[in-house]
Amino acid sequence: MSTLPSKFADTCGYRTHFIEAGNGKPLLLVHGGGAGADARGNWEATCIPLLSRERRAIAMDMVGFGHSDAPNPDAFDYGPEGRVDQMIAFIEGMKLGPLDIVGNSMGGRTALATAIRRPDLVGDLILMGSAGLDRSMGGAVAALTEYDFTYQGMERIVVALTNDGHEPDPAMVQYRLDLSCQSAHKAAFGATMKALILRHGLWIEDEEIAGVKHRTLVINGKDDKIIPIAHAYKYLELLENSTGVILPHCGHWAMIEHPEVFSNTVLQFLGGRL
Amino acid sequence: MSTLPSKFADTCGYRTHFIEAGNGKPLLLVHGGGAGADARGNWEATCIPLLSRERRAIAMDMVGFGHSDAPNPDAFDYGPEGRVDQMIAFIEGMKLGPLDIVGNSMGGRTALATAIRRPDLVGDLILMGSAGLDRSMGGAVAALTEYDFTYQGMERIVVALTNDGHEPDPAMVQYRLDLSCQSAHKAAFGATMKALILRHGLWIEDEEIAGVKHRTLVINGKDDKIIPIAHAYKYLELLENSTGVILPHCGHWAMIEHPEVFSNTVLQFLGGRL
Repeated sequence: MSTLPSKFADTCGYRTHFIEAGNGKPLLLVHGGGAGADARGNWEATCIPLLSRERRAIAMDMVGFGHSDAPNPDAFDYGPEGRVDQMIAFIEGMKLGPLDIVGNSMGGRTALATAIRRPDLVGDLILMGSAGLDRSMGGAVAALTEYDFTYQGMERIVVALTNDGHEPDPAMVQYRLDLSCQSAHKAAFGATMKALILRHGLWIEDEEIAGVKHRTLVINGKDDKIIPIAHAYKYLELLENSTGVILPHCGHWAMIEHPEVFSNTVLQFLGGRL
Repeated sequence: MSTLPSKFADTCGYRTHFIEAGNGKPLLLVHGGGAGADARGNWEATCIPLLSRERRAIAMDMVGFGHSDAPNPDAFDYGPEGRVDQMIAFIEGMKLGPLDIVGNSMGGRTALATAIRRPDLVGDLILMGSAGLDRSMGGAVAALTEYDFTYQGMERIVVALTNDGHEPDPAMVQYRLDLSCQSAHKAAFGATMKALILRHGLWIEDEEIAGVKHRTLVINGKDDKIIPIAHAYKYLELLENSTGVILPHCGHWAMIEHPEVFSNTVLQFLGGRL
């Protein structure tokens, strides 16, 4: 599955892994928080070939995921603000700001929180099936929080995250399973889920969200069982400069379920044509 | 304001006026039901130059509007189904079916009802600020139903139909005022509004809407004071194969308020890229 060379940046005392392709204005791609999620699995074969025609597409692994370091949870806080620290350090270290950011799920929440804390570092935002709004995530989130590090458990995650017509690709299931079973990352994932469940989840206050004035594209699948479509409508209400795109026959992974439509929609929006 | 030549088709015993430009697959554009609405005012200077780059764009005047005939209301029913009859006769007479249809407001309702009655004549549907769902239209609809055939009355309509930052163009106000004051059309408009207010409005049953399986794009401005955004969300729920695009800083007239974004979005959708 690996074709683009692995690169690393120093962030907050640990290494952040990323891949990149294309030239032009940079565009940061951020994966979600399901076990085994990473930059390569989310973006490399799906959207990077399409997005990199117009942009320098950079996909990063969040701390504890993919090939980024996974510090010991005894000495590291895997709460949501740690990922915001990482994103800020990455953007500043690579001198990328202000840059446009695409975030899926937990990655959308991290992008949004970065725009709140450091608006100067962010250009346009694309929030896809984005967490952040409140605690009432769909029931299917149990497939994520109760993941048991088995093939069947990973298959349950893929089914929960995609529309009913989407067949899980066994190679992708195995790839994510292998990534999730790296021992340091296994501990990191446990700590990440614990922070998600016990400590306010991924919630950002409505007032803080409404303070974001960046041009924002809110994309949501109608069949998203993790972030129900009502969350997208709430984002559209709160974010003054937001445009909405609602996709049929699409769950939580528009970038994997519909990569052509997703990539084209992102480019149309970034180009001011949507 | 007139540049494209006027053309006419025989429909249901009266003449339907239309304009057209471009080559390729036909695309029908249908104006809304406000006083003075017509094909030229809605589409000629705004979207036809953009849409006709890829499609044969055909904009028709509905019965009693623009330069289509306005039969005497004593002998003609200006209820919503009469416009469906007209659309079917136009498509069949011009041998255009199945064709893609863009409808604004009352025109969206007519396109949708045509897809219900004659699904074979319709390709993809684009419903923009579309009526049809239920009686609870926004309070601003009073500007339409209480129109008094004065310049100030027409200006109130334009203000009600656009976002707060949109300045009414005096030439457009005067153009619509003149159209609305043609005597036969004045009587027709009165009959159209009477049918809208007294006889079920423009309502289509949810079950009938849910039976439409055509690919559909639902576009709505967030600031639409006639068709509130909740109507778009209801359409997205009812129509299985519908994609939604929600626009900020946009009222009831996306085609006039944001012609570039609107036209591009329509073409992206029709091309399967959205």
